[in-house]
Formats: sequence, C-alpha cells, structure tokens
Amino acid sequence: MRIVLDAMGSDDCPGPEVQAAIEATGQFGDPLILVGPADRLKPMLSEASYEADRILLVDAPDTINMEDKGLKLALKAKRRGSKTSMAVGMDLVLSGEADAFVTAGNTGGALATAYYRLGTIPGVERPALTALFPVKGGYCVVLDIGANPECKPFHLLQFAMMGTVYANRVRGLPNPRVGLLSNGEEAGKGNELVKGTYPLLEASGLNFIGNVEGKELFGGEADVVVMDGFTGNILLKSSEAVAKLIVDVLRQELMANTRTKIGALLAKPAFANIKRMLDPGEVGAAPLLGINGLVFIGHGRSDAHALVSAIHTARQAVEANLLEALRDAIQQQLQQVPVRFQAEKAEQLYD
Amino acid sequence: MRIVLDAMGSDDCPGPEVQAAIEATGQFGDPLILVGPADRLKPMLSEASYEADRILLVDAPDTINMEDKGLKLALKAKRRGSKTSMAVGMDLVLSGEADAFVTAGNTGGALATAYYRLGTIPGVERPALTALFPVKGGYCVVLDIGANPECKPFHLLQFAMMGTVYANRVRGLPNPRVGLLSNGEEAGKGNELVKGTYPLLEASGLNFIGNVEGKELFGGEADVVVMDGFTGNILLKSSEAVAKLIVDVLRQELMANTRTKIGALLAKPAFANIKRMLDPGEVGAAPLLGINGLVFIGHGRSDAHALVSAIHTARQAVEANLLEALRDAIQQQLQQVPVRFQAEKAEQLYD
Repeated sequence: MRIVLDAMGSDDCPGPEVQAAIEATGQFGDPLILVGPADRLKPMLSEASYEADRILLVDAPDTINMEDKGLKLALKAKRRGSKTSMAVGMDLVLSGEADAFVTAGNTGGALATAYYRLGTIPGVERPALTALFPVKGGYCVVLDIGANPECKPFHLLQFAMMGTVYANRVRGLPNPRVGLLSNGEEAGKGNELVKGTYPLLEASGLNFIGNVEGKELFGGEADVVVMDGFTGNILLKSSEAVAKLIVDVLRQELMANTRTKIGALLAKPAFANIKRMLDPGEVGAAPLLGINGLVFIGHGRSDAHALVSAIHTARQAVEANLLEALRDAIQQQLQQVPVRFQAEKAEQLYD
Repeated sequence: MRIVLDAMGSDDCPGPEVQAAIEATGQFGDPLILVGPADRLKPMLSEASYEADRILLVDAPDTINMEDKGLKLALKAKRRGSKTSMAVGMDLVLSGEADAFVTAGNTGGALATAYYRLGTIPGVERPALTALFPVKGGYCVVLDIGANPECKPFHLLQFAMMGTVYANRVRGLPNPRVGLLSNGEEAGKGNELVKGTYPLLEASGLNFIGNVEGKELFGGEADVVVMDGFTGNILLKSSEAVAKLIVDVLRQELMANTRTKIGALLAKPAFANIKRMLDPGEVGAAPLLGINGLVFIGHGRSDAHALVSAIHTARQAVEANLLEALRDAIQQQLQQVPVRFQAEKAEQLYD
C-alpha cells in the first residue's frame, strides 16, 4: 500500500510532515510518498535517520496556501502541469501510483484540487467535506461541513449513503444510525431542504433515525448526521468555539489563586480526557466523500502524531476498500426506483 | 410599572413563579400580575407571606404545554376568549393594563400567542426569537434562534436593526457591533441568503462588522449576530449540547478517583464561573423582537431566581422604552431609500 503525504499541509509544515513520514514508515512497514518542494525536503530528510528507500520524495515546488482563493485557487487546482503538492500528490492517486492522499492543508484547496483532478464517483453530484465529531462515547461522522453551501435533498441523501458506507467500512459499525440535522426532532420540523430530505431518507433503506438536534448529535445517538455545507460549517466552527471558550474560562479560573492551582494540579488527569476529546490528532483525518479517489484532510494544527494518525485512517480506508464500497453503494442506490422517483419529485421543488 | 408573569411557564411551575412573584414585588417595589389557574395559585399564595395587594392574581384556567403543536397550538394562541395563561397575560399587555409579559414556557406557544394577539410592529415582517449567548467577556444578542426557518435578506436586516436597538437600549451598549453569521469571514462567503444580506447590512447605517463565524461570536467580537431561524436554532442547541458534553465528561473524570476528587474540591470556585456562564438564570430572559408589545421568554429550566432575573430584564426594557425605540428605528430605516431599494433588489432574487 502506498499513501502520499502532502509535505506542505500543516500550519508548521514541513517539519511535522517529515517526522510523520519517518514515523509512519517505521510503524506501518510500507513505503510512503512525500510530496513537496524537494529543495526544502531533501536536506531535512538527509539529516534524519530512517531507511532511505522507505520514503519516496516526489518534487512539487508550488503550494496552495491559506491566501489562495477564487480564480487563483481554481487555476492551481485545475491546471494541467500544476506543481502544487496537492496537485502532484493527487495525480499520483489518479495514475494508480498511490492508494490515498493525505494532507493537513487548506481544506478548500484540497477540495478544489480533488474535484478537478480526481472528479467525483459516477452518480455522485456533490462531494462532501466530512468531519468526525467527538461525541458522548465516541465519534460521529458529520457531513457536509462546508463543500456545498447550497444543497438539494438528493445531495443530502447521497451524503447519508456515503457517510453510512464510511462509518461501516472504516469505523466498523455494523448498521450506522443516520440522523438529519434539524431545528426539532419531529418529522415535520425543518427548513425546506430538511423537509424535502426527510422522505428520501425514510425510503432509502438506510438506518434512518429521523431528525436530530445538537442534543442527539453530541449525545452520541447517531453515527452519521447529514446537513447542507453552510449549516455544517457553522455547526463545526461554533462547536469548536464553544469548547474553546469553556476551556479558556476554566483555565483562567483555575489559575486564579493557590487553592485552585493546587486543585487543578491534582485534578490534572481528569482534564486529559477533555483535552484528548478536543485534540485533532485523535480523529486523524476526515475523508472527502464522493471524490473518485481517496483523499483525507487532517486538521491544520496537526503535529507529527496527528499526521501519523491521519495516515493510519487513510490506510484503514484503503484496506477496507472504501472507494469501491462507495461506488457500489451509489450505483445500487441509484438503481432503486422508489428512491430515485422520490428524489426527482423532491428535486422539482427546488429547480 | 406592571409586569405580568405567566405562572404556568417553567418546567416546575407554578412553584418557582409564585416564589418569584413574591420576591420580585419585594425587590422592585411595584405590584406584579400573576396569571394562571386561580384555584391552584390562590392556596399557594395564601400560604405564603407577602403584602397581599402587591400581587394581582388574574385567572387563566388553561395552559399551553409542550405537547401543544400545530393547529391545536394555533387555536389556543389565536382564539378570542382563549384562557391560556399566555393569552390572558398578553391580552393585558394589549389593553395597556400591563407593560410587559414574562414567561418561562413553551417558546413556540409564546411566539404564536404574541403573533396572533399583539401582532408585529408596523413595518416588521417577521418577529424574531432572540437569545443572549454567553460569550467571552459578556453576552451576545443572537437572532433569529427559531421563529423563521426560512428567511429573506430583508428579514435579517430587520433582525439586525432590532437587535441593535435592544443591545443599545437594554444592554446599554453605545454602538453595538453587528455580525452576520456565515461559513467564512470574507465578504463573498455564505449561502444565497447571507450573500443577499451582506450588502443590505453594509448600507444600513448599523455598525456592521461583516461576516462572523463561531470564533468571533463566542470570542465576544460582536454584540449582535443575525441569521435565519433554522441556522440559529441549530447554533443554539448545538452550543448547549457541546457545553453539556464537556461539563459531563469533566464531572465524570473528576469523580474517577480520590486524587481528582480532592482536586475538584479545591478547584471548586473555578467551576463556579463556568456554571454561572451556562446558567439560564444569569441571562434572565430574551425578548421576542418585532412583536408589538414587550414579551420576554425565560429558559424552561428557570427557578425562582432566574424568573426574578427575567422580570428584572423586562423592567429594564420598559424603563428604556424599548418598544418605542424599536418602532422608531423600524420607521426610520424603512424611510431610508438606499436600504429599501437594495432590499427590494435583493428580494427579487428570492421571490
């Protein structure tokens, strides 16, 4: 198995990536492709101690950074011969020289590059950004968290199908429970999109548990929760912000005086679980579901440990034949008459 | 000044309401109207010790409860002669016998009752449910958190105007900063609604600081943040759920062994601030902005302390002439040609 790691992804790149590449090859045995500017990476690798034939360095002098937007980003993503680490890395997946691409870089850049270079799985209209949310007792597969600010019911149906395959194949859940994020648990609640999606999910054959709210999502009552990319992005970012606010206030208060400082010291092990829960390294990376190739995006704040964890997630997906499973599921579902019929009916409301 | 308190609002009603009525009259001096089933309330009041002429009991034998939905709720809210505590209480506001109505009851019920009985401020198309979010360094006025799952740009403009008046008059902020919740800070980011709203807010004369994400909202960088009611409801509920998850995990971990238990005991004062931050009693109550009368909704979990705080908030609004200020602001803004013109232009995209 060959994973390509984007050397220019994380906030502190390429240091963590180089370290992660070395650790991952040691840990998993397989060689790994590191893609990025050779003139920067070669000296770093030559200083490090590892088996030289385990890390294949592929030169990509250009990068996509946080400032790349709009047309500039589209060109870097799309252009034939683009030499960004993302373009070169994904081209290796396209040509079959690698099995999956892992990056901790600009999410929009990865999405655009994947969309233009790898395309979507036949039958998939919209690829979705996926995140693993830490919830009570584990994780929840949440999508779309930002690829598609405007969605139609059929897109949410496909997100649910793809999320189910991911939760089943990679996260090992036998019959993932699928929830539809809404502003109320009752069937009639929601905006027009949610109301149009509900009957599609009901008829989908998925393990649809109905509308869910924040309580059910973070309470661990669903394994997959779907929504449009605008709502999902706000959900993701506000959840992170609330968690940060609470941790910040608590930290400040714990440093208030000697008594609380001693208390904090004694209680330290208890805070470890919270920290782990909020640590991007724990979830590894989230897939771009619907892209016709395996692409995993880790958190920008990833360190080497988080990147190794991201590589591990990508390896699990390759081993589980995730891409084929997604292709099969999409094909099967598209052939189901009731789903397609109802989807078309619902679509008419939005066209 | 006369505030009407719904005796049948909170989860444990009417005990907390009776106690709050007694405390509030003692604390604020003015008499207070308690509305609810007289046969239940009279015995409770006669057992209590207070100056009898300070609490005016108005009989309302019927209630709106959490099970009231759809047509049943609409009838209870709308029907002439409806004897729910909300209907009777708001009728007192309509007739001028009371200055503001306070309830900790069913939000949908309060909204429907207010909409049918008090109507909207002239020029306001949609009333908005408003919440005060605890954020870094204080509170943020957030609307709409659930009244309108589908909105147009003009509605969000009005929410921003009303939120600004509220933040200014009741929360005492001289020039409230207004943010538009979006999936990115840049001006071009957002779904169609956000993109349509942005230019309206820019031209509004409000202190518009642009798009905000969870980071800015919970970081205390805006005083008012507007959004459609679907997104706002999900924001509210998921934020509460994340906070609960973190507190639950922490509590569980702190009870893990003797060392952490002692640590927790010593660090206890530090947790008080978090608890206060998440305590509904601290924010008192949130207004139904856009209704042609002052209606305040407290949290269902309110105890007597929280209800007194809710009454206090309502009193501040009455003293600040909130309703007149809202009416004036709406009238002034509607007369501004550029805003109206741009609003109409933006509306066309959605009609």
